[in-house]
Amino acid sequence: MHEFELIKNYFQKLSKKSPGSLKLNDDVFYDKKNRLVISIDTYTEGNHFIDFKKPDLVIKKIIRSSISDLICKGVQPKYYFISGSGNKKSFTKNNLLKISKSLNEEQNKYKIFLSGGDTVFSNKISFTITSIGFANNIVYRNKAKANDDIYVSGNIGDSYLGLLVLKNKILLNNSFRKYFTNQYFMPNIQLKLSSYLKKFANTSIDISDGLLTDLDKMLNSQKLFYKIFLKDIPISSTLKKVLNLKNLSKIDCISNGDDYQVLFTAPKKFKGIIRKISLNNRIKLTKIGTIQSIGKKSLIVDHKNRIIEVKNKGYFHQF
Amino acid sequence: MHEFELIKNYFQKLSKKSPGSLKLNDDVFYDKKNRLVISIDTYTEGNHFIDFKKPDLVIKKIIRSSISDLICKGVQPKYYFISGSGNKKSFTKNNLLKISKSLNEEQNKYKIFLSGGDTVFSNKISFTITSIGFANNIVYRNKAKANDDIYVSGNIGDSYLGLLVLKNKILLNNSFRKYFTNQYFMPNIQLKLSSYLKKFANTSIDISDGLLTDLDKMLNSQKLFYKIFLKDIPISSTLKKVLNLKNLSKIDCISNGDDYQVLFTAPKKFKGIIRKISLNNRIKLTKIGTIQSIGKKSLIVDHKNRIIEVKNKGYFHQF
Repeated sequence: MHEFELIKNYFQKLSKKSPGSLKLNDDVFYDKKNRLVISIDTYTEGNHFIDFKKPDLVIKKIIRSSISDLICKGVQPKYYFISGSGNKKSFTKNNLLKISKSLNEEQNKYKIFLSGGDTVFSNKISFTITSIGFANNIVYRNKAKANDDIYVSGNIGDSYLGLLVLKNKILLNNSFRKYFTNQYFMPNIQLKLSSYLKKFANTSIDISDGLLTDLDKMLNSQKLFYKIFLKDIPISSTLKKVLNLKNLSKIDCISNGDDYQVLFTAPKKFKGIIRKISLNNRIKLTKIGTIQSIGKKSLIVDHKNRIIEVKNKGYFHQF
Repeated sequence: MHEFELIKNYFQKLSKKSPGSLKLNDDVFYDKKNRLVISIDTYTEGNHFIDFKKPDLVIKKIIRSSISDLICKGVQPKYYFISGSGNKKSFTKNNLLKISKSLNEEQNKYKIFLSGGDTVFSNKISFTITSIGFANNIVYRNKAKANDDIYVSGNIGDSYLGLLVLKNKILLNNSFRKYFTNQYFMPNIQLKLSSYLKKFANTSIDISDGLLTDLDKMLNSQKLFYKIFLKDIPISSTLKKVLNLKNLSKIDCISNGDDYQVLFTAPKKFKGIIRKISLNNRIKLTKIGTIQSIGKKSLIVDHKNRIIEVKNKGYFHQF
């Protein structure tokens, strides 16, 4: 069973008396009356992270992934909670020191504070991270308007290359290896963008499961479609080099998620403001397409406007 | 490493800028400014629940365990979040239906609402439950005063007998089996008591790890001691029968936790009020001892005032 189906069939009706649940169809819980914004995610070994050989980096990745859910809604994260499951081997003194040091670094970088949690014994390593912020408004999913421009922050695809490196599925020199694995473990999440987002974005999501999958999720209860241009999807100069070097296809590299960049739509009239905010704050923001109300399906097209058929649109949990 | 040591050595310093974390030494996070009260706990198969043969009952147990943390602080739970890890075998359609039905029953019973969560694939079944309430004040840990009376709600020990039954460590007839396993899976948590607690309690905790362990935790940063009387610890008439029948010792049965009753201290002057609230609302509240500022250690004594040495004071996680 697809995870969306599971939630819809068995749990959505239980949430109808909790307006903040947003019908279990957004990245966050938002109780407007209490200004409360919450994101909760579970990360398991062998699934969300390959193994626990680098606990310092795994911790950074999952903390950033968690607060990214708030950031993409225009909310500054404030508190986080960490529930860790592990055993003697995973929670050695050395590993705990590394985890503690990493958390401290993330706290200073993103102005977030550990506020609680739980440690339980388990032979399987997993973490549930809860992130909390307070906001008078947020940017929701499913609020795109026809003719909106579609933007993405930063670069897409570096993280996937990092995963290929870590899984030994690609051979690269040390400098490339380091660059991509760093992007995988420490994605360049957009805290600064967060405070501007509500000025211009109609709708938003962070890219965790894959650009195309997350585009679909962003619009999943609207009768709207996206049309995006493969050539306009921003990738790093390093990824460009490796695509040429290894004869890899761009479409594969940008569809695999773990990017934690912000995907949003904005009315065309805000084009100038978005450019200005981008320049003044050195936040890379790229228009990759538009929202359409006509047509029958969403499209990704090549430089000659030809439709690209995509087999693997991204990641989802299957039960 | 003891879980308390783990938290103190590696994580407590990270929480110092989050006043709501209560130094990671209370049952809940409490951000007074935002009136926000949060409890987060992870429950794993083979640890917090034996197996997943009765998903409907396991779900009830962990939901009650989670909201019990708020209830014991005098806070009404309002929202809950559920992050489930499992696979095809654990999350079959039949099991999902049972889980959904149980959640619905708990929602109606305790006026709580599913507000979000997460499902991830894992061969190990675990759940992280987050419960949220809003309150202008809460009852904290470590606020006992010398000469306070110590009270406990409901009965202690039934849940432990249920565990023994489920583990086939005791042979009982069907009617006993059913009574104790029901108490284990569906502890009689004290939602009604919650709203009165702030009127008289100086300090409180819920009994999850064991009466004596939780008494220690309730006082762990105070130079105070408890003296409690084994004979005064309330047990059900059913447990009384089984103790006689099976020649079991009371002290073992009341030290093993999973009771989810409220343990609190109150000034002696509130004795009358407490009795009145207890009678009017049919909430069993029993005085089991007093808080002492003299002496060198906490004590549990028998009917002849002789100190009882206890080997197993309760449950804790070891890494």
